[in-house]
Amino acid sequence: MAEKDNSIFIGNKAFMNYVTAVVMQFTTKNAEEVLIKARGKFIARAVDVAEIACKRFLENTVKVKDVKIDSEDFQNKEGKDVRVSIIEIILTKA
Amino acid sequence: MAEKDNSIFIGNKAFMNYVTAVVMQFTTKNAEEVLIKARGKFIARAVDVAEIACKRFLENTVKVKDVKIDSEDFQNKEGKDVRVSIIEIILTKA
Repeated sequence: MAEKDNSIFIGNKAFMNYVTAVVMQFTTKNAEEVLIKARGKFIARAVDVAEIACKRFLENTVKVKDVKIDSEDFQNKEGKDVRVSIIEIILTKA
Repeated sequence: MAEKDNSIFIGNKAFMNYVTAVVMQFTTKNAEEVLIKARGKFIARAVDVAEIACKRFLENTVKVKDVKIDSEDFQNKEGKDVRVSIIEIILTKA
């Protein structure tokens, strides 16, 4: 199922890498939907990627289908309980 | 209509101010819904506020109803075109 994985996880690479990855999923890979995921401080960036991809590069062809937020609890290296927020943005062909 | 305004705009005040504002809307002000809004870098913080309010303070009584993203173009002081992303998170009584 690897070739059907249309998820893009946002981190600290150059911003346009992510925008290009989204655009290519819809164009060269002909995806119907793309899932953009991010955690913590990268959440704002995920929204930027989705907005730039939809409004500047894929205008009138791709739109935001759904946005979900959630959070996870986990233990960090020091054994302390930490909570981190998560966003998932689903883009779909318009 | 001022007294019906259940919007909370996230900025750079202390984090717990916003969580408390959300919780108070639902408790002392008995709101049915609360809208959390943020722009740019404060988007990640808005998600944190929503998650902490729902999962730690208002567990089983308030949930995320809808999340919307958008962006605005405007001119900054230097007359340059700038784009900023926006998030709106609607919380509702469960």
